[in-house]
Amino acid sequence: MPKIRAAVAGANGYAGMTAVGLLAVHPHVELVQLTSRSLAGKPYQEVFPLLGRLGRFTEEVEPRGLDVIFSCLPHAAGAARTADWFRAGARVIDMSADYRLKDSAQYPRWYGQEHPAPELLNQAVLGLPELHADQIADAQLVAVPGCYSTASILALAPAVASGQVASDVVVDAKSGVSGAGKSLKPSSHAGFVLENLSPYAVGAHRHAPEIAQQLGMPVCFVPHLLPVRRGLLATCYVQTDADARALLEDAYAESPVVRVLPDGVTPELARVQTTDAAELAVFTDDATGTTIVICALDNLGKGAAGQAVQNANLALGLAETAGLRLHGVFV
Amino acid sequence: MPKIRAAVAGANGYAGMTAVGLLAVHPHVELVQLTSRSLAGKPYQEVFPLLGRLGRFTEEVEPRGLDVIFSCLPHAAGAARTADWFRAGARVIDMSADYRLKDSAQYPRWYGQEHPAPELLNQAVLGLPELHADQIADAQLVAVPGCYSTASILALAPAVASGQVASDVVVDAKSGVSGAGKSLKPSSHAGFVLENLSPYAVGAHRHAPEIAQQLGMPVCFVPHLLPVRRGLLATCYVQTDADARALLEDAYAESPVVRVLPDGVTPELARVQTTDAAELAVFTDDATGTTIVICALDNLGKGAAGQAVQNANLALGLAETAGLRLHGVFV
Amino acid sequence: MPKIRAAVAGANGYAGMTAVGLLAVHPHVELVQLTSRSLAGKPYQEVFPLLGRLGRFTEEVEPRGLDVIFSCLPHAAGAARTADWFRAGARVIDMSADYRLKDSAQYPRWYGQEHPAPELLNQAVLGLPELHADQIADAQLVAVPGCYSTASILALAPAVASGQVASDVVVDAKSGVSGAGKSLKPSSHAGFVLENLSPYAVGAHRHAPEIAQQLGMPVCFVPHLLPVRRGLLATCYVQTDADARALLEDAYAESPVVRVLPDGVTPELARVQTTDAAELAVFTDDATGTTIVICALDNLGKGAAGQAVQNANLALGLAETAGLRLHGVFV
Amino acid sequence: MPKIRAAVAGANGYAGMTAVGLLAVHPHVELVQLTSRSLAGKPYQEVFPLLGRLGRFTEEVEPRGLDVIFSCLPHAAGAARTADWFRAGARVIDMSADYRLKDSAQYPRWYGQEHPAPELLNQAVLGLPELHADQIADAQLVAVPGCYSTASILALAPAVASGQVASDVVVDAKSGVSGAGKSLKPSSHAGFVLENLSPYAVGAHRHAPEIAQQLGMPVCFVPHLLPVRRGLLATCYVQTDADARALLEDAYAESPVVRVLPDGVTPELARVQTTDAAELAVFTDDATGTTIVICALDNLGKGAAGQAVQNANLALGLAETAGLRLHGVFV
Repeated sequence: MPKIRAAVAGANGYAGMTAVGLLAVHPHVELVQLTSRSLAGKPYQEVFPLLGRLGRFTEEVEPRGLDVIFSCLPHAAGAARTADWFRAGARVIDMSADYRLKDSAQYPRWYGQEHPAPELLNQAVLGLPELHADQIADAQLVAVPGCYSTASILALAPAVASGQVASDVVVDAKSGVSGAGKSLKPSSHAGFVLENLSPYAVGAHRHAPEIAQQLGMPVCFVPHLLPVRRGLLATCYVQTDADARALLEDAYAESPVVRVLPDGVTPELARVQTTDAAELAVFTDDATGTTIVICALDNLGKGAAGQAVQNANLALGLAETAGLRLHGVFV
Repeated sequence: MPKIRAAVAGANGYAGMTAVGLLAVHPHVELVQLTSRSLAGKPYQEVFPLLGRLGRFTEEVEPRGLDVIFSCLPHAAGAARTADWFRAGARVIDMSADYRLKDSAQYPRWYGQEHPAPELLNQAVLGLPELHADQIADAQLVAVPGCYSTASILALAPAVASGQVASDVVVDAKSGVSGAGKSLKPSSHAGFVLENLSPYAVGAHRHAPEIAQQLGMPVCFVPHLLPVRRGLLATCYVQTDADARALLEDAYAESPVVRVLPDGVTPELARVQTTDAAELAVFTDDATGTTIVICALDNLGKGAAGQAVQNANLALGLAETAGLRLHGVFV
Repeated sequence: MPKIRAAVAGANGYAGMTAVGLLAVHPHVELVQLTSRSLAGKPYQEVFPLLGRLGRFTEEVEPRGLDVIFSCLPHAAGAARTADWFRAGARVIDMSADYRLKDSAQYPRWYGQEHPAPELLNQAVLGLPELHADQIADAQLVAVPGCYSTASILALAPAVASGQVASDVVVDAKSGVSGAGKSLKPSSHAGFVLENLSPYAVGAHRHAPEIAQQLGMPVCFVPHLLPVRRGLLATCYVQTDADARALLEDAYAESPVVRVLPDGVTPELARVQTTDAAELAVFTDDATGTTIVICALDNLGKGAAGQAVQNANLALGLAETAGLRLHGVFV
Repeated sequence: MPKIRAAVAGANGYAGMTAVGLLAVHPHVELVQLTSRSLAGKPYQEVFPLLGRLGRFTEEVEPRGLDVIFSCLPHAAGAARTADWFRAGARVIDMSADYRLKDSAQYPRWYGQEHPAPELLNQAVLGLPELHADQIADAQLVAVPGCYSTASILALAPAVASGQVASDVVVDAKSGVSGAGKSLKPSSHAGFVLENLSPYAVGAHRHAPEIAQQLGMPVCFVPHLLPVRRGLLATCYVQTDADARALLEDAYAESPVVRVLPDGVTPELARVQTTDAAELAVFTDDATGTTIVICALDNLGKGAAGQAVQNANLALGLAETAGLRLHGVFV
């Protein structure tokens, strides 16, 4: 079988770099182009010294001959190029937020500008394989959901779909600093992050409408910045009469990537770090009967590049887990 | 004015050591005895090299002549000594859980044995000065609330007291590792804690009934272990029509220790680290209208030793903030 | 080709667990036994939930039918079993300190007892493939060097071997907390480790004689405990007229595992974390002309389990890097 | 006694903020002006919410009526204003590098431009009170040494002064991220700093010539960036026949700020964090006889703002330790 020819657009950010790391050792993929405005002209070797790859970063993807483009460009930048990439025959796995919200009218509120390609929104499939595997198979355009959205939806979708969830769903999420990207900002300075925990965008985060869209109901979403490099944990609170554990176990019984922990086993962010898997755990509060579903995943793995590769595998007819890291380190 | 003569019982744990640190430089206190089973006989100087104090740890408090005993003994151990200490004329500021739950029938469930001194429970005053200053003044026995309880109650009590809080209150709390004490356990090993976040005692933590008792309603309480030394942040979710900000500002307007942050200012664990103050912030969720109240404090400061000293100040007629650290470092 | 049948003895510690993780996905190895005193009888699944392996921990290795035993037992415990394992026909890759020091008279000083099997010391080959590949090929007993020793020897051996190094070699080493093992001790408590750096065993560490034995000269060795989980960096100071860079590049030109960084590229502990590779960098001090060689590696990878697997590969005639992780993550 | 009127120029950086924190509670100082280009016009209250101070940041110091100016301006910026400040009658405690190197010819190499006020270099006194208390008393211009320089000189000066130190002195230093300042750079991004240790400016750091100037001999100096907020530890290696412990104990016997630890007590960075004190420990290497002197201090305390206040106290005739924090927290 000839290898799939792939490019990573925006290979300088954390998600792009992680995608490069996965694709460089993917058994069925040949990584033929990496682009980056800021790195254009530099040899790959300077940025990825351990990968041993020849070639140089370019400014723009040359889409001819590519089977798939992993786009990690900033929001709006990728959407402006998608139509061109389609015309050249490439599938697009989009890791920005551009194709996540179906209603283009919501885009300006969260991203501060009009959507550059609203006519493509209908073609985009939400890249959550555990929920939309059928649509992803052979999809041309996959919108990889945000890291927080992935964790929250994996935790909540089965119970919500059962029709037995009252309103007042709360998601209290905690993420490592790589979730905020590689760009320099005061809140990513180690002098701020170390020995700290800081809530941000309280009740007003961009991932909240993604979650609401998928679930069909609003949730109260509050993210916090952790003093860790990678990893994310979402603690979800739901009032329901349903047997949430049974619903989750049923929903993910066939998944090679999402694992429901046995009763009494506590999820840990560290166990999924540097993997492309997700862990779920279910508890019931003694005092109030509230159902608590906790999801742990790596924001750059299942929350970004790992999920992108999982989507590409499905869209291209490869084994779902080809090239994925499904177990982590033990220390 | 002669100095208050004080002892710290159980001066080898984190809370005890922090109490020693505060009392050693308290302007109105003379620290005359430190006890510790494990350190008995050792010179103070070996354990607290920077304090420059003469003397040695003893095994038991000698209560005669003491004005106040700060008890940091393990639960049940302190309660077994309280009556003796009273007879000798000392006030007791108890930092264990022994005198927090008014109903002695609850004690076995949470602490695995019968309460050693149930007859004293009625004399104990809950040591939350922002709520019970009148009772604390001249109190003989003060039960300093738990770190999580302090944060949760400070955040929730004003709204709950207004009678406008529906049920389904959620407290999602995060604490540094010193909250788990100095004893050695796998979950405090740095190889577990670093680059990790782990929920524990989910829906079944000892501080939940303390919070419920004070608020008069159950809450869903979930704690998480952070990779930081000190500090705690509780994110509280409430369905209410009340103006929570106004209620909080009103409740703590006179407090020198609890501060409601201005609208838009985000609480940060790091800002209260190594202080005896607490910060509160109020937000409303865009999507669901949920009220979010966040409290940050140092689990060993306002969450333990700092609050103990604040209580002692009130009980002994000193200035409420004598010896407290009310602002932290900026980096 | 039939798979190599392997056991890990002492699979509950950090090095053992890491060996299990590597061997579980090694293309030519079948992992057939895991032993642990403390875990005996427990299903593998409870300890390694993501590996999907059936079976239970046993107390002792059953050596019959095994090709290789990776011994991660505490010092002296493994040496007492080696002869039995040999008789059953298994090779032994020993990750304890038992077979590192050639002179059994040194053993009591560093390990507090007589060597349990001094007659085997002559059969042991030092498991540093970059220096002793010929001896390791087909070796029956390989003594994997300590993590600090590996880093120090990789950094210093080429220059020392050139005969141009004066005395007064200094190795200032820094290691993550997993280097101190999984057992509980005050210096591994996260309340001690976080936001701290602490030198220990200053000028008197067990790895110093290993380094001296290999180099043929004593070195001044000082280790420091870092607030990181994994990874080790050794900064080595040498007075020499030799061109250390040329010597290092020459020594490791053929190595797939040890990499000399280009001039001006700074080594980083994070880049080698969770890998089995090592990085070396060379600098000259402006003011004094001192040669500075820095080695970074993962104490559990190239410093323990990764090097063990590399040795086993050579001893068993497999590709040297089979099953090794040679590039890390980028964030 | 009327209070000393003080200003902090450049009060937005880490050193400046720490100086503000100390001076705000200094018993003999009234802090009357804070300047910052970037914060000019903002109320103090926004930046230092816990200090409770009225007023706003200004762009430039108004020197009339000031007794002392603590200058934390970037290098060259402060030197350009010093003469004006002198004319207005203020003393200057300079925390930049401008007045540290006596030979202005060295300035361009390390700071990339000509010295703006070489004529003032002769008036500057090196602000290391343990070595130069006599000169600092009543000094008009004090050059506070760098954090690394302070630690290295405190550790090495007594032995070097004894005339018994051979050449080949090595200083291997490790600092928390606040040492690199508050400005945004890739190497201060938490995604780089956490779980990492990185050497930098190897053998070519700006503090090396400061150390050499004071000691009268060059040293090999290599700094490393630690994943901690604050604190610095310098491990110094010296070949000497002198009794380094006796020399150190003698040198600092009278110092209220620098403490030589008893034999066998290990220095720890955490113990001096957020203090203005320094700890020294002495060891002898078993194998080589090398003398190892380790200094731990807080880079923003004794390494910057704390030392600045200590100098100001001496220059203004106050008690040397007024306003200093000499013991830290225990957790």
